[in-house]
Amino acid sequence: MIKISNKAALGSVISAEDVARIMPQACKALETLEQGTGAGNDFIGWVNLPGSITQDTLSQIEEVASSLRETCEYVVTIGIGGSYLGAKAVIEALSDNFAAYKPAKTKVLFAGNNIGEDYLSDLMNLLRDRRFGIIVISKSGTTTEPAIAFRLLKELLEQQVGKKVAAQRIVAITDEHKGALRNLATEEGYKTFVIPSNVGGRFSVLTPVGLLPIAVAGFDIRKLVAGATEIEKADNQLVLLYAATRNALYRAGKKTEILVNYNPKLHYFAEWWKQLYGESEGKENKGIFTASVDFTTDLHSMGQWIQEGERTIFETVISVEKADNEVIIPFDDANLDALNYIAGKRVDEVNKMAELGTRIAHQDGGVPNLLIQIPEISEKYLGQLIYFFEKACGVSGYILGVNPFNQPGVEAYKKNMFALLKKPGYEAESQAILARIDK
Amino acid sequence: MIKISNKAALGSVISAEDVARIMPQACKALETLEQGTGAGNDFIGWVNLPGSITQDTLSQIEEVASSLRETCEYVVTIGIGGSYLGAKAVIEALSDNFAAYKPAKTKVLFAGNNIGEDYLSDLMNLLRDRRFGIIVISKSGTTTEPAIAFRLLKELLEQQVGKKVAAQRIVAITDEHKGALRNLATEEGYKTFVIPSNVGGRFSVLTPVGLLPIAVAGFDIRKLVAGATEIEKADNQLVLLYAATRNALYRAGKKTEILVNYNPKLHYFAEWWKQLYGESEGKENKGIFTASVDFTTDLHSMGQWIQEGERTIFETVISVEKADNEVIIPFDDANLDALNYIAGKRVDEVNKMAELGTRIAHQDGGVPNLLIQIPEISEKYLGQLIYFFEKACGVSGYILGVNPFNQPGVEAYKKNMFALLKKPGYEAESQAILARIDK
Repeated sequence: MIKISNKAALGSVISAEDVARIMPQACKALETLEQGTGAGNDFIGWVNLPGSITQDTLSQIEEVASSLRETCEYVVTIGIGGSYLGAKAVIEALSDNFAAYKPAKTKVLFAGNNIGEDYLSDLMNLLRDRRFGIIVISKSGTTTEPAIAFRLLKELLEQQVGKKVAAQRIVAITDEHKGALRNLATEEGYKTFVIPSNVGGRFSVLTPVGLLPIAVAGFDIRKLVAGATEIEKADNQLVLLYAATRNALYRAGKKTEILVNYNPKLHYFAEWWKQLYGESEGKENKGIFTASVDFTTDLHSMGQWIQEGERTIFETVISVEKADNEVIIPFDDANLDALNYIAGKRVDEVNKMAELGTRIAHQDGGVPNLLIQIPEISEKYLGQLIYFFEKACGVSGYILGVNPFNQPGVEAYKKNMFALLKKPGYEAESQAILARIDK
Repeated sequence: MIKISNKAALGSVISAEDVARIMPQACKALETLEQGTGAGNDFIGWVNLPGSITQDTLSQIEEVASSLRETCEYVVTIGIGGSYLGAKAVIEALSDNFAAYKPAKTKVLFAGNNIGEDYLSDLMNLLRDRRFGIIVISKSGTTTEPAIAFRLLKELLEQQVGKKVAAQRIVAITDEHKGALRNLATEEGYKTFVIPSNVGGRFSVLTPVGLLPIAVAGFDIRKLVAGATEIEKADNQLVLLYAATRNALYRAGKKTEILVNYNPKLHYFAEWWKQLYGESEGKENKGIFTASVDFTTDLHSMGQWIQEGERTIFETVISVEKADNEVIIPFDDANLDALNYIAGKRVDEVNKMAELGTRIAHQDGGVPNLLIQIPEISEKYLGQLIYFFEKACGVSGYILGVNPFNQPGVEAYKKNMFALLKKPGYEAESQAILARIDK
């Protein structure tokens, strides 16, 4: 089971009493979340999700994944935000660090997560002569980024293999009943999976949104779900401790939380976490700013700032107990690099001492540290981490006093973009924004 | 030439007068930098670097690059911090977005930028049956991360092709006269290039540290250097404007600067920038915290926080005028996704409206915006951006009142790590730190 300690977060900035003082509020927030009596309670379908996923659902996902794997060298997952980051996070965490350079039965790529013309052009050039399939993920089917990517890749696929075969290689994950993508899927006869209407994007990785691409990449979604279910069924001590401590730190002026890993494979897990907390809490002019670093890499870039810059940050370190592969540092007779004192050690032993040394150095430098420990990077523990962070996020947002399940601010740029592109229905906004720009 | 505007940074937070008030200080800082009379003036060799790179140096780099390209499928660049990020930034910016999946004469990989046991294991498995070479970059040759990677990869290469051929495929970039790597290179007969002793890591991309890997990746280092030289020879208006504006914003409580791009290829350019500014300014409990986002991707993760979270941030947007490849959004009879209103447009036109719409939305939301425009992503304009950001960084650091050219805080974790690993010479520190942990 994952473990969490706030011992190195306590000291000059906050005390154990400060955390204890928030604990009743945290318990109340948890109750609000579990009883569904709080703000945004139409989007808490994820709370009881892991334990309620049926064997049947998992089998259906595995079956479709297996059929895509049989047919396709590449499967492009089209989605943005929560329809992309969860799958990306888990796949990257479980993959070989150099997977892109190595042969594999089926590789999962991502698109529709930007509006890059070169990105799409480069992708289409790659796919032109390859067997590929598409997983398109969108509740509405009209979100600009994935809609553009899907139009282009659908056309490419149909040109390549014809409309009928293309339809067998496209899977839509969308609303159960309504929306453009649901209608299109019905019309074209695509296989479909449902995004539950009461689960928001950033909480959707344990729905088919995340599970199908993860299964296509060849990983065990049953273990992932089982791991999440373990935390769902456990008492909420870990969740309360993390939510209460980070709010205590925030109240004490620690406005930025940096999620730290010592394993490059966890880079995208941190990106998923940044969305989860940033989008849930960053509203009403409050909320912790979420950042992340990959150590020791970034000790040689952001390390200086973290050690000695403004004292407005705290760190949450994800510590992985063991590496999967053994690499021993060789002995060298000449020893010009003076490394013989660690010859014979596993590389990971050195990494662990870098980690421990850094945690102590940052604590000494005035950076409170939360520590989350997992035994290894595997489906099971990623599942645990995912549900732990989700649950703690709901609790933390309620402690902060916001609705953690909406994202009203995301509409602002879209509205302007539609106005600038003169989308039908945005005529008044078009006039207004163009008048502003002319000035 | 690159352009910069602070128009959208002026308004309720800071006024043009606030920037003007800092300008004399900025001019003084520039003078201090150019005359070499400030703190850290033993590390300002980069100031007059671009214009002083000789044709001869460039030819030597190109020759070695060309020989590595002839011999190797993979060239592993071993380095950390500034010995990695500059090359990575330029290579990623100029490469196909899916380069890893496509055939190429020679691919550049990176190692020694972490202590990941799985990372090194996965890399060695990739290289085991391939023709590969090594560029090892370290002033001292004893920095832990690159030293470990080099021991392992050197051994692998020597096992594969023998000591003699291996020596022809290894290039060392190191101090001119002293240090472990210099001694090893002399002993083994490696080709070498020099890291000037008065150029620090984060300012070293226009030395062989960056230029050799960039040339090996197949890009034109002459154009890169020429672009940088153009800014070196230009008046310093852009530099002063950026340095003065960001300091005015910092004084007004904007403690985090987010570097924004709308082209995923610029992701690592932002990582390079984060080190440049974070490591130069984050000291004495001050300095702007550097963060970055890739839009529109991250509008669906950090977008909510940026739009409505704490008002303690400003953005610097790198806007690229044109994309390299044309992709037209196709017309669709059914139009279920309601995209026909943009059918016939280039994808980049939509991206541009997303960018403009976002800049306006964020400004309206209380996020001051600096805008940097480049005509295209090419060697020339990357060279301009690099030198622009370097020069402005020196000026900005002096305005802030720190030594922008040291990084004393980076030693803290190293000292602890050496103590924990019981490195010879750290006996007292070992005892002290082990006693602390036991408690």
